[in-house]
Amino acid sequence: MTIEAKRLLVGQPLRTGSLGQQLLTKRLALPVFCSDPISSVAYATQEILLVLALGGPMLLHLTRGVGLAILMLLGIVVASYRQICFTYPSGGGAYVVSRDTLGERASLVAAAALLVDYVLTVAVSVVAGVDAITSYAAALNRHAVALSLGFVLLLMLVNLRGLKESGRGFAAPTYAFIAGIFLMFAVAAWRVMTGQHLHAVSANFHLQPAHHLARLLLVVLVLRAFASGCTALTGVEAVSNGIPAFRPPKSRNAATTLAVMGVLSATMFGGITLLALLTHVQMADEPGRLLGAPAGYVEPTALAQIAEAVFGPGPIFAFIQAATAGILVLAANTAFNGFPVLTSLLARDGYLPRQLHHRGDRLVFSNGIIVLALAAGLLVVVFDANVSRLIQLYILGVFVSFTLAQAGMVRRWQRDLARATDRQRQRIRRGQVINALGAVTTALVLVIVVVTKFSHGAWIVCVAMPALFLLMRHIGRYYEKVRQETALHDEPTRPASNHALVLVSGLNQPTAQAVAYARAIYPASLEAVTVQIEQDETEELKRAWADHHVDVPLVVLYSPYREITRPVVDYVRTYPRSSPRDVITVVIPQRVAGRWWEQPLHNHSALRIKSRLLFQPAVVVTSVPYQLRSAIARVHRPDTGDRDTLILHAARHTSPQPPSRL
Amino acid sequence: MTIEAKRLLVGQPLRTGSLGQQLLTKRLALPVFCSDPISSVAYATQEILLVLALGGPMLLHLTRGVGLAILMLLGIVVASYRQICFTYPSGGGAYVVSRDTLGERASLVAAAALLVDYVLTVAVSVVAGVDAITSYAAALNRHAVALSLGFVLLLMLVNLRGLKESGRGFAAPTYAFIAGIFLMFAVAAWRVMTGQHLHAVSANFHLQPAHHLARLLLVVLVLRAFASGCTALTGVEAVSNGIPAFRPPKSRNAATTLAVMGVLSATMFGGITLLALLTHVQMADEPGRLLGAPAGYVEPTALAQIAEAVFGPGPIFAFIQAATAGILVLAANTAFNGFPVLTSLLARDGYLPRQLHHRGDRLVFSNGIIVLALAAGLLVVVFDANVSRLIQLYILGVFVSFTLAQAGMVRRWQRDLARATDRQRQRIRRGQVINALGAVTTALVLVIVVVTKFSHGAWIVCVAMPALFLLMRHIGRYYEKVRQETALHDEPTRPASNHALVLVSGLNQPTAQAVAYARAIYPASLEAVTVQIEQDETEELKRAWADHHVDVPLVVLYSPYREITRPVVDYVRTYPRSSPRDVITVVIPQRVAGRWWEQPLHNHSALRIKSRLLFQPAVVVTSVPYQLRSAIARVHRPDTGDRDTLILHAARHTSPQPPSRL
Repeated sequence: MTIEAKRLLVGQPLRTGSLGQQLLTKRLALPVFCSDPISSVAYATQEILLVLALGGPMLLHLTRGVGLAILMLLGIVVASYRQICFTYPSGGGAYVVSRDTLGERASLVAAAALLVDYVLTVAVSVVAGVDAITSYAAALNRHAVALSLGFVLLLMLVNLRGLKESGRGFAAPTYAFIAGIFLMFAVAAWRVMTGQHLHAVSANFHLQPAHHLARLLLVVLVLRAFASGCTALTGVEAVSNGIPAFRPPKSRNAATTLAVMGVLSATMFGGITLLALLTHVQMADEPGRLLGAPAGYVEPTALAQIAEAVFGPGPIFAFIQAATAGILVLAANTAFNGFPVLTSLLARDGYLPRQLHHRGDRLVFSNGIIVLALAAGLLVVVFDANVSRLIQLYILGVFVSFTLAQAGMVRRWQRDLARATDRQRQRIRRGQVINALGAVTTALVLVIVVVTKFSHGAWIVCVAMPALFLLMRHIGRYYEKVRQETALHDEPTRPASNHALVLVSGLNQPTAQAVAYARAIYPASLEAVTVQIEQDETEELKRAWADHHVDVPLVVLYSPYREITRPVVDYVRTYPRSSPRDVITVVIPQRVAGRWWEQPLHNHSALRIKSRLLFQPAVVVTSVPYQLRSAIARVHRPDTGDRDTLILHAARHTSPQPPSRL
Repeated sequence: MTIEAKRLLVGQPLRTGSLGQQLLTKRLALPVFCSDPISSVAYATQEILLVLALGGPMLLHLTRGVGLAILMLLGIVVASYRQICFTYPSGGGAYVVSRDTLGERASLVAAAALLVDYVLTVAVSVVAGVDAITSYAAALNRHAVALSLGFVLLLMLVNLRGLKESGRGFAAPTYAFIAGIFLMFAVAAWRVMTGQHLHAVSANFHLQPAHHLARLLLVVLVLRAFASGCTALTGVEAVSNGIPAFRPPKSRNAATTLAVMGVLSATMFGGITLLALLTHVQMADEPGRLLGAPAGYVEPTALAQIAEAVFGPGPIFAFIQAATAGILVLAANTAFNGFPVLTSLLARDGYLPRQLHHRGDRLVFSNGIIVLALAAGLLVVVFDANVSRLIQLYILGVFVSFTLAQAGMVRRWQRDLARATDRQRQRIRRGQVINALGAVTTALVLVIVVVTKFSHGAWIVCVAMPALFLLMRHIGRYYEKVRQETALHDEPTRPASNHALVLVSGLNQPTAQAVAYARAIYPASLEAVTVQIEQDETEELKRAWADHHVDVPLVVLYSPYREITRPVVDYVRTYPRSSPRDVITVVIPQRVAGRWWEQPLHNHSALRIKSRLLFQPAVVVTSVPYQLRSAIARVHRPDTGDRDTLILHAARHTSPQPPSRL
């Protein structure tokens, strides 16, 4: 990608100094960090219905009880995470908390769970958003995969442009969705009170129980429905992760945002669940189980059925669907905010490749964004843009990280208790109780999720999480090993003599320049080395060498197998050294071309030789570039010619101690 | 690919000295170079029949006249090419001949035609070979594409193993095919003489004329049939290209081989065409036009129908089909012998990337072989392994190169005539007449081919050939421009001062080693340079720098956009130089890891910085490798520790003239 194209797609780079201006007000933080938990009310109810519907229409009334249990759970989790906001003001997701309190192993489990969740958040939210669209425009249903991929791509580009634009551009759909749902509640209440009947489109169908129901106990079915409904809780963690992006007082603002989010989510989830029961929404994962449905019936989402029942098929229904699609697509944005921060943290701690650590030039973590978009796009394609199938994978990781974060907080309170004043003790005890309740509850849910969802797809996560865990631990141990291996273990041997070899294939300006450079590093010995492939060419080179009186011995290497790399490497390897501390500098003239299509026409042998020589101890490889005209045209000009703005610190160490040999 | 896997697939490398042992006897040269023209009799007759069948069964008798015309053409072309064998004993294809006599432009046209032809030879021959198999085992018909690709892959591997094995392994099928066809002639003659009737399987069907026939004049149809039948001539050029591979006397042996090939081809093509008429073979490009054919009729090749009519469906029929498949697949081998030689010639002359010039380590031109296999594989897939569709593309390029080669020979004779003795003049006149006849005839055929085949696919070649021509001319001009640009135009400026900058990100052994090396090149100034991304990291580095009393100033660069590359490049660009002849050496410590999965974990920033610095004039980049333990384990050991066998020539130039400043 050229610089120009990159600028067009992702905008101008931002300076570190402008990071402060990027901080979010609560009003902007809500859409950025809470669109995920709020938007999940768009599908949580329907996932409960879909499971209970396996038992036929007479089980649907259980939705109410399942919904109530989920509301209680939501309250506990929100309260627990508010504690984290105050305790970890620099941002504390499950990874940070468990690393601080439970050790490396637990923190990597949490990290693996979070990574998997971010990917699933993108996939589930985008696919559910597309469902909202196809519930209004059924004809688009067969393009669901393409639409979903389009949204993932769009999100990737928006996020590569930077944090603030995301907050602003995404505020409208969140507030539109919240407003739309509450308007729906109001109109529904008014219509019920005036004695009108609300009927969902599927209310008239005859729901058949699933064939395999015989094998299921009622309690298992209810627990599975509960586990599915727990998607309403996904994304609660985002706020506590994103505290640094809030305006000060950061912790207080974040905790308030979390509370507002909790109240909004609870109200909307409760209201939608009640309306689903009232309008008799019936859903089935196999369309054949809905007797009386017309041929080619594309099942609308539960929320769409409710909205149509309340508003009729007019423009307000269309608005609700558009707002739903909007908030869901930007819920995926929550993950695009969180994932790169987490991978950057993990890379900083050495558990992921270092290039994920540094920010790109838009104050965001470009590499992480791209990895996330690719992984989510893959899931969308593999699961054929089906929300219910993706949901099975989603909840497991969420509750792993919930449990670890809360358990970590319990341990943290214990630690704080030891050095607390009496006045603090009361607050700590209260926090400990809240987090202990959170830990026990979420652990219980985790068990339920694993048991009821394992065979429905959760096994994939049960494989992916340990794989990620092992990968990160492996990388962590590798970096640690390299750090120990490369630690300053002794005074490095100052080279005794430096022998220079210039690789030549012809006598031309690049070669002459390389020879001139080699002289300027004052080598103990200097030779030009060429490999004979075709005798004619070598003879011509030797003639030119003599004609120009080049005062450097020309060594011709015999290449019995017409290779170039091996003779050079062997020659360097066996070069006679007078001391083991001798170094050999191999000087390679390199033609630098400016246009992409010129690259395959130059420097193949040189690059292959170079990559092989790097493996030889006490051999240094020097590239003396010769810029062709096309390359000179491409030379980068600095933004400012002002050196002072460039150099932060240039200290001459006039240390009182004797200088080291280094 | 690891060295071990490569050895297993392509065998041990061969020394240049063993090139002599690779020379071919006539008995081996025939299968290697003549399998292509000989094997084309397997499909030439059928392509004539397919075109004439467009006019219905009453036109099939014209096959005889068309066949006779092709036999005459074959005689002329073989006679013409025998002249080339004697005139260009070091190998003269259309490229060499036209470059020598008609200039660069014509030679590149010839080269483009030959490159296209080699690719089509592989595609057509392999696909026709698979047709021979499916004519016996119709069930394999739906795997035709996969089978064809398998053969292409097999040929690629066999050829990567070297020339000789190809000759040996491929001799058997050629002689089996020749023997089989002559046996078929003998049995057919005996059965006809004993009064038996020979009937092809398709003789009983009712052939319908094609619907679009009304638009075709009879003469056009006959010319198209003739053009299709000209495939019998493809590959004649291979012998004259391959003269260096013959045992001495090379020219005489090659000319003899060419004559033997001509007689064999003519006899077999004539015989097969007669038998096709005798057995009433009927073929149609649309199966629906053969009324009376059973449902799911997979049309056997004409040769298969004849063989079955003569031998019945027993083991001899199977043998004929196997031999046919065998010779066709190895006909593709002709191209695998010729293509890499041609691309190597073109690369030597600077019309293709240089890496195609040098031989790989198996005395063959590995890169060319791989390119050829890829291109042919692509054609097989695009044309769905259909011989008749591929044939339309095939003949055009063949006759372009025939015409250019013969026209070039006429010019060459004219040149020779000027300085010839009287005794030579007679022979030259005779040669000139033969080649003039060849040039005129093949030019005429070329016109017929273009006119009758253009809309049937030959347009693809009419696009591909000019594209290749322009590409090669462009590369040629580019290399020439670079050669002029890099020619030794003046004494290169010996650097006035050499300033060394060591890039550091932490104080560790690789950094210390790089600093130690930088001291050993005696720079006029020495600095360590780091880029501040995270302030903590920089502070730690500064502390370590002070703690270890490193006596090198540490310059910290400010990176407002958290980039690493740009600040370094800007710093180097604006580095204060006391003279324009100053050089800056940027020393980069580089960790070298031995395992593939370690690569993504190291050196990203270093490599990006390096590739950008190469564009800066008067900047030299030096990599000081630090081998991690995994890399040390992988260090290459030379085959021999014997330096004397390695160095061919090491001259100390004690020139009497004063040494140059170089």
